[in-house]
Amino acid sequence: MKIGAFGEVMLRLTPPEYFLLEQTDQLRMAFTGTGVNLLSNLDRFGQTTQLMTKLPDNRLGEAAAANLRKLGIALNYTGFSGDHLGSYFAELGYGARPTQVTYQNRRNSAFSLSQAADYSLEEFVTEMDLIHICGISLSLTETTAETAQKLAEIAHTAGKAVCFDFNFRPSLNDAPGQREIMKERYLAILPYADIVFGTVRDLVELLDYDTKPTDKTSETLLIQRFIKEYQLTWFVGTERQYDGQQHHLRGKLYTAEVFITSESYPLQILDRIGAGDAYAAGILLGFAEDWSLEYTVKFATANAVLAHTIAGDVPLTTKKTVEHFLTAPHVDLLR
Amino acid sequence: MKIGAFGEVMLRLTPPEYFLLEQTDQLRMAFTGTGVNLLSNLDRFGQTTQLMTKLPDNRLGEAAAANLRKLGIALNYTGFSGDHLGSYFAELGYGARPTQVTYQNRRNSAFSLSQAADYSLEEFVTEMDLIHICGISLSLTETTAETAQKLAEIAHTAGKAVCFDFNFRPSLNDAPGQREIMKERYLAILPYADIVFGTVRDLVELLDYDTKPTDKTSETLLIQRFIKEYQLTWFVGTERQYDGQQHHLRGKLYTAEVFITSESYPLQILDRIGAGDAYAAGILLGFAEDWSLEYTVKFATANAVLAHTIAGDVPLTTKKTVEHFLTAPHVDLLR
Amino acid sequence: MKIGAFGEVMLRLTPPEYFLLEQTDQLRMAFTGTGVNLLSNLDRFGQTTQLMTKLPDNRLGEAAAANLRKLGIALNYTGFSGDHLGSYFAELGYGARPTQVTYQNRRNSAFSLSQAADYSLEEFVTEMDLIHICGISLSLTETTAETAQKLAEIAHTAGKAVCFDFNFRPSLNDAPGQREIMKERYLAILPYADIVFGTVRDLVELLDYDTKPTDKTSETLLIQRFIKEYQLTWFVGTERQYDGQQHHLRGKLYTAEVFITSESYPLQILDRIGAGDAYAAGILLGFAEDWSLEYTVKFATANAVLAHTIAGDVPLTTKKTVEHFLTAPHVDLLR
Amino acid sequence: MKIGAFGEVMLRLTPPEYFLLEQTDQLRMAFTGTGVNLLSNLDRFGQTTQLMTKLPDNRLGEAAAANLRKLGIALNYTGFSGDHLGSYFAELGYGARPTQVTYQNRRNSAFSLSQAADYSLEEFVTEMDLIHICGISLSLTETTAETAQKLAEIAHTAGKAVCFDFNFRPSLNDAPGQREIMKERYLAILPYADIVFGTVRDLVELLDYDTKPTDKTSETLLIQRFIKEYQLTWFVGTERQYDGQQHHLRGKLYTAEVFITSESYPLQILDRIGAGDAYAAGILLGFAEDWSLEYTVKFATANAVLAHTIAGDVPLTTKKTVEHFLTAPHVDLLR
Amino acid sequence: MKIGAFGEVMLRLTPPEYFLLEQTDQLRMAFTGTGVNLLSNLDRFGQTTQLMTKLPDNRLGEAAAANLRKLGIALNYTGFSGDHLGSYFAELGYGARPTQVTYQNRRNSAFSLSQAADYSLEEFVTEMDLIHICGISLSLTETTAETAQKLAEIAHTAGKAVCFDFNFRPSLNDAPGQREIMKERYLAILPYADIVFGTVRDLVELLDYDTKPTDKTSETLLIQRFIKEYQLTWFVGTERQYDGQQHHLRGKLYTAEVFITSESYPLQILDRIGAGDAYAAGILLGFAEDWSLEYTVKFATANAVLAHTIAGDVPLTTKKTVEHFLTAPHVDLLR
Amino acid sequence: MKIGAFGEVMLRLTPPEYFLLEQTDQLRMAFTGTGVNLLSNLDRFGQTTQLMTKLPDNRLGEAAAANLRKLGIALNYTGFSGDHLGSYFAELGYGARPTQVTYQNRRNSAFSLSQAADYSLEEFVTEMDLIHICGISLSLTETTAETAQKLAEIAHTAGKAVCFDFNFRPSLNDAPGQREIMKERYLAILPYADIVFGTVRDLVELLDYDTKPTDKTSETLLIQRFIKEYQLTWFVGTERQYDGQQHHLRGKLYTAEVFITSESYPLQILDRIGAGDAYAAGILLGFAEDWSLEYTVKFATANAVLAHTIAGDVPLTTKKTVEHFLTAPHVDLLR
Repeated sequence: MKIGAFGEVMLRLTPPEYFLLEQTDQLRMAFTGTGVNLLSNLDRFGQTTQLMTKLPDNRLGEAAAANLRKLGIALNYTGFSGDHLGSYFAELGYGARPTQVTYQNRRNSAFSLSQAADYSLEEFVTEMDLIHICGISLSLTETTAETAQKLAEIAHTAGKAVCFDFNFRPSLNDAPGQREIMKERYLAILPYADIVFGTVRDLVELLDYDTKPTDKTSETLLIQRFIKEYQLTWFVGTERQYDGQQHHLRGKLYTAEVFITSESYPLQILDRIGAGDAYAAGILLGFAEDWSLEYTVKFATANAVLAHTIAGDVPLTTKKTVEHFLTAPHVDLLR
Repeated sequence: MKIGAFGEVMLRLTPPEYFLLEQTDQLRMAFTGTGVNLLSNLDRFGQTTQLMTKLPDNRLGEAAAANLRKLGIALNYTGFSGDHLGSYFAELGYGARPTQVTYQNRRNSAFSLSQAADYSLEEFVTEMDLIHICGISLSLTETTAETAQKLAEIAHTAGKAVCFDFNFRPSLNDAPGQREIMKERYLAILPYADIVFGTVRDLVELLDYDTKPTDKTSETLLIQRFIKEYQLTWFVGTERQYDGQQHHLRGKLYTAEVFITSESYPLQILDRIGAGDAYAAGILLGFAEDWSLEYTVKFATANAVLAHTIAGDVPLTTKKTVEHFLTAPHVDLLR
Repeated sequence: MKIGAFGEVMLRLTPPEYFLLEQTDQLRMAFTGTGVNLLSNLDRFGQTTQLMTKLPDNRLGEAAAANLRKLGIALNYTGFSGDHLGSYFAELGYGARPTQVTYQNRRNSAFSLSQAADYSLEEFVTEMDLIHICGISLSLTETTAETAQKLAEIAHTAGKAVCFDFNFRPSLNDAPGQREIMKERYLAILPYADIVFGTVRDLVELLDYDTKPTDKTSETLLIQRFIKEYQLTWFVGTERQYDGQQHHLRGKLYTAEVFITSESYPLQILDRIGAGDAYAAGILLGFAEDWSLEYTVKFATANAVLAHTIAGDVPLTTKKTVEHFLTAPHVDLLR
Repeated sequence: MKIGAFGEVMLRLTPPEYFLLEQTDQLRMAFTGTGVNLLSNLDRFGQTTQLMTKLPDNRLGEAAAANLRKLGIALNYTGFSGDHLGSYFAELGYGARPTQVTYQNRRNSAFSLSQAADYSLEEFVTEMDLIHICGISLSLTETTAETAQKLAEIAHTAGKAVCFDFNFRPSLNDAPGQREIMKERYLAILPYADIVFGTVRDLVELLDYDTKPTDKTSETLLIQRFIKEYQLTWFVGTERQYDGQQHHLRGKLYTAEVFITSESYPLQILDRIGAGDAYAAGILLGFAEDWSLEYTVKFATANAVLAHTIAGDVPLTTKKTVEHFLTAPHVDLLR
Repeated sequence: MKIGAFGEVMLRLTPPEYFLLEQTDQLRMAFTGTGVNLLSNLDRFGQTTQLMTKLPDNRLGEAAAANLRKLGIALNYTGFSGDHLGSYFAELGYGARPTQVTYQNRRNSAFSLSQAADYSLEEFVTEMDLIHICGISLSLTETTAETAQKLAEIAHTAGKAVCFDFNFRPSLNDAPGQREIMKERYLAILPYADIVFGTVRDLVELLDYDTKPTDKTSETLLIQRFIKEYQLTWFVGTERQYDGQQHHLRGKLYTAEVFITSESYPLQILDRIGAGDAYAAGILLGFAEDWSLEYTVKFATANAVLAHTIAGDVPLTTKKTVEHFLTAPHVDLLR
Repeated sequence: MKIGAFGEVMLRLTPPEYFLLEQTDQLRMAFTGTGVNLLSNLDRFGQTTQLMTKLPDNRLGEAAAANLRKLGIALNYTGFSGDHLGSYFAELGYGARPTQVTYQNRRNSAFSLSQAADYSLEEFVTEMDLIHICGISLSLTETTAETAQKLAEIAHTAGKAVCFDFNFRPSLNDAPGQREIMKERYLAILPYADIVFGTVRDLVELLDYDTKPTDKTSETLLIQRFIKEYQLTWFVGTERQYDGQQHHLRGKLYTAEVFITSESYPLQILDRIGAGDAYAAGILLGFAEDWSLEYTVKFATANAVLAHTIAGDVPLTTKKTVEHFLTAPHVDLLR
């Protein structure tokens, strides 16, 4: 399947060996973002991908492009303008100490300052079978929100599948009145979506759907009400649990009729960031290859479990490595 | 509160990535010591601190001073003389393999060769509210023991709180007759102390208090007898347990009347060294801010748990990170 | 002397071993800026310094503050706000290949968004003997320009020496009409200056002083006319020459009456950036210690020559190392 | 005891910090191989060792020799020829993600192209008390198989103990007809062996011993039948178990009469490779020092457990560190 | 222009900081080869490129492909087979100490074992405008020589430009009789070439053209005789000189009628390897863009001079950086 | 020839990439010393060597021993005691900035505290053909001076060649009265020496030979008077010159009758330390292989020139690399 994503590329700067920023002057540079993570993983899964974005028109943009090519991402729809890339520092957690992400200026990046007119939206939609839009675009600037909205409309009209990822970050939306603006934007884009990644919290806290459900049954009912309201194919997400010593993960997929969930896997965490994108990549692979719902959720969850064991945001798994984990989890050495 | 410490600065040399010394030619240089660890943590906790010590009068001393400043340590009472700094190699353990510390010559360092007359003891005491003295000073040389003793007397006389950390290391005191000398020195300084960090083993094995208590009740009685004998405010320590797979830590605080203990936390250990100093910093913060005994012990223990997850000796925690761990231990990603 | 600077702190990211950005994912993080470079050097020269600036109010700002403390810079007048620090990538040149600096968003940094009201200008001026203002502040934003202007006025009125560094960068001022705005701002601040760092090109191209002088004598006359116009004590700068294989540097200092120049030194360049700030630090040291003009220029030039041989922007020289170079340039090993 | 091994030296290339090959351009170079791992460990255990092998006759061979000397391996019987060393990339696993070994051309290495006539077999046997032969030599090339066979015969005839390690790797033997050739070669060398390292799977799948045993008793019977058939002293191996979250290891040793097994130890795995060689080294030490069977198996298993916590193939343990683990497993800091 | 190359990809392993192999266990991994270097540079010069080669069908091949994509190389004609990549160690020289290259097994690589039938030669030729063939292919194996020969014939017949690089390495051809075989192969391919990279030494020592010319005039005559004999468009090369302290480089281009040479540039050498490929890339760019012969040689030589100042084999220059060097060689800082 | 050295092993700690100690927390660990440098080089030149010294009896000593084995140094006469190794920090210079060595406590090392009775002096002398003694031993402690003296006497009496290296360091001898003690010790050992490394300054300033000679002829006469007085075979040294931009080196060798000097070589300096030991190693090789005086000096000087281009103290040259430099200095790439 041909999968195109519209989204921000970020510069990730990571100190080595679990150091805090005060402990080292060495940083590892990587280029990430929801679209990057997803497409790179889907490329390794054998899909054809394109990223529609803007990179800075300077040496940093050139370096970003080289690194994205290395990740297997085609850049036919990627332009160069401005001088800035949103960036973040990732101080990796260990045990009881959480990973700390510190963002630096995302609203003046080449992407954030880009406008719908800067992109070939129709051509992009024509070439692709599925379009992925990340909710971050709704939060960044008015122009990225407009572009996302237009892209969803064009794709939906053209009969292409549209996948929308809520990805609602309070930290990007804490200005007064901002939640109301965000709610409007989310409500405007949802009618054009087919697959939605989100949580029940997004429905309750952002979209004001009732009060928080108190049990699994009412949670399922609420989500299925949402699915029907927007005529979604799938509503998808993960659930993390913590038993005081160990984190666990399970995958979830809702249609208007059924609720599928995977078993719960214990997590050993090398790098916490990007696991959600790995889950999404697995789901879209199942969609692209028309797998059973059960196997789709199982595969996607396993992919997310493995993503926790890989450094960086980008889930560098393949079908082979995910399948190996599902069939022979006890093997710890391959040669 | 203004907190001053008298103690040795050491050069720590650590191979990266859990390597043994034969496996790499790369070492990470850091500057540590009980006083350094404690004051740096207290500075991050919002206290005002000063370190009274000696650094070498050469390029190494200049580098040490720059690194101590980076750690937030004021050096108004720190002088420069000689050419040597006590140093140690830390080969970090992993799982079943313990961390191995190898000391190099601590008795000819700028600090070890320093004398009471080299320091402005009165001025230092006048400026500070609480004086911290590490038992290592009693072990290193006759002159550091004398300085520690004088400092305790002056501080006590001036009505300043004196905190004394047993920190008794058999490896520094294995010469014949040395234990007897050490016992005398410890007995001489204790009358001037208000808060003491130690273990029941210190009382039994170094100070010849009875025989080792066989149950918790008799242990508490013995420690409270010691507290009353020296009119201490607090006697404080931690207890480590191992269940065959996992290490656990709990904090303890005794007054003449009560015994407070925290819950027992499982440990995930990135760097074993400095956890005791993190506990001490938490206790002194509770003392400085006049917290309840319960919260003081809880906070100090949480601080020590987090210190195990931070590379290096120095506990780079803040009130915010400790409180976050206490209120939301399940959160493993902050953004 | 007590020397205070008002200026931007930047994040410098440098690939190791002369690599280009596409060749590595490792970056060295450092915190620099004209004020940082200058004050850190002056601190090592024995002066008392303060930096007035804004750092981000997040983990990056904390890391920046720790690193500035390490450089010997006092931060009593430094505040924390916003989330961004101007940054640049430095791809170090080698031989025929020039060093390439790539800036990322400087106009939305904590510093660029700060206003005069955010600082204690009077208190700062009162505490200091000399105030250093970098022309970059005039270019960044309207508010940083206003703060710089106010600071100059207050300092001048209070009878403190004011040092102004042209530091005019066309790359920060290529918007239409921007040069005219800049000219106005420069003209407004100059009446309050005592020592000015600049070049004849600044006078001709920015301030429209005549045409470019064609020989040394008319250059000197033009500069001395400028000195008299603004009643400057000193006008100071350096001159770089290239003979096809080797770069050379000489220092220059003009008063209303005399023109002093050093001999020309061949350069061996490890890191090209920050050499101008090293020259400035040497000049201010001569000013602070009331040296002869000749020795001031000689020392400052030697300091700049050495700065080329030290990694990073910050000139980590001392009086001892500069004097050693001046008296024993043939010695290549000290022990 | 004087222990000599005949075997391949390999170049191991390992990315740092659990990175995959696409994630870094940094590799750690090490020199390993069954013989290298075993002898280096035995040298640290106080035995005298020699490695009989071939290294390339170029700078790589010189570097290999220097590194082997560092590991304590004597090279009196090691020659230099050709230009190649078999190599492998080790992408270290983490949690659910297994370690991935990727071999590069082992059959054209200096060792693989060597012939019996290139070595001083008789002299080697005369000097040694025990000869170790790795089954890899039977798989690599016809000439290494011949040399291994001759060496076993000469050693057996000379009354020296012969230790043979099955080490059968399907990945080196997947050509059609290759398993039959391998079976012949293994059957030819076994009559000359005294101690054999292997698994019941080797007997069943390679040597066609019955069908796979279904319980421990029939497994023991099958192995003891094999022992008697070849008049072996010991048949030795380990057993790995996985409970869904944790890997465990136990050691096993069979004689014609008894079956000894250690307790099962949980594993914390820093580097999975080389643990089997650590077990073998422990067994050979027990043999060399004539320990009880029980302590031999216990020590060897503990050695293998510790080997999992040490980076690289080579088990850098000593008697002291193994004994410390056996007597004080709760101690996680030594100073 | 569309430029396709047929050639070997190699794994280059480089110790950092000018270390020798015995001095470090750290290596930098890169993927190089004449085709890689040339095409990557031409891609940065704005040309469209394709590499026809074979990579190993394992994790190393995957990593190689990712890195080649990063270098801007399209891999539509690149296949995966076997398990091996030819590799070399590069110990970088410094001053009087030459760079030492140590090759490891190039004749059993995926490329060396590939056959003409493994490639889509016709399709490749049809898509491209110019085909580059490296003489190394004639030296490696019979099958790579055959493929090179066929490719040259097909391209020539199809009217595409054929560029052939002598690249004759005695070290790959020291077997007895091998020079005769090589001479035959070179003679067979030359009739199909249009542009040839080589030296007069190649003509004399490999092709037995007369004796070595003693002056520039006779050298030019000999080369022009060769050009006419094979109806070449251009014969191209460089000339290195050493004056006892400094290396110099000049470029040369011969047609049947004229001899063009650039000025001689002094070299500052960071990485000696790949400079010849940079010269070739510059020449092909001039050919593709139909520049004057003079500017083509000047640009190509400047490109080679800059390639000496860039780490690694691959010349990461652009038109902009080369032109900047030609117009403003005195500028050592760009911002 | 069998060459044995008695001398100190030091721990060298070097920041990477020309950083100062304040600029990095990374250090490269190496083990050096005059004896180490000399013997390691001589081992690579094909001689048989032994080092008589003491290493600490802890993990540092074990690491030192492993690294010395890697350098090709046999340790049959090396013991383990104490806990300390003399160490130094080497901040590498660049261009105008000299290399700065900072020593840490050399007088309490295992070596410095060792006594003659700790070594098997007679056995050592019996096994060796030539004994090398470094003057540093005379400076460190009374006991190392005694051991050196005894060793010289025993070796001389046994008819073995004795090589003594002045290596007089004012920095180790600045205590009052110390120069007089040193003079006595040097005068006591010289009668047992055959080859002496030194300078005319040693004779004048330490041994009070006349006044400093004003021309080459009187310098030669003074040195030859010294040679005759002590019946030396050779007096050997180097001469460094600096022309304002470039350092140069020439070698010198005096017998009672002749004075041999090499040509003067320009130096390109990667690592300044250890060049003198490289010269000494070359001289001893010429002695061992009975070369002509001219070639001995030429080879030794070339060896010292190359040592400047190799990182670290230890001259990792071979006969092949030195001869290559002498015969083909223009070749900068070997493959």
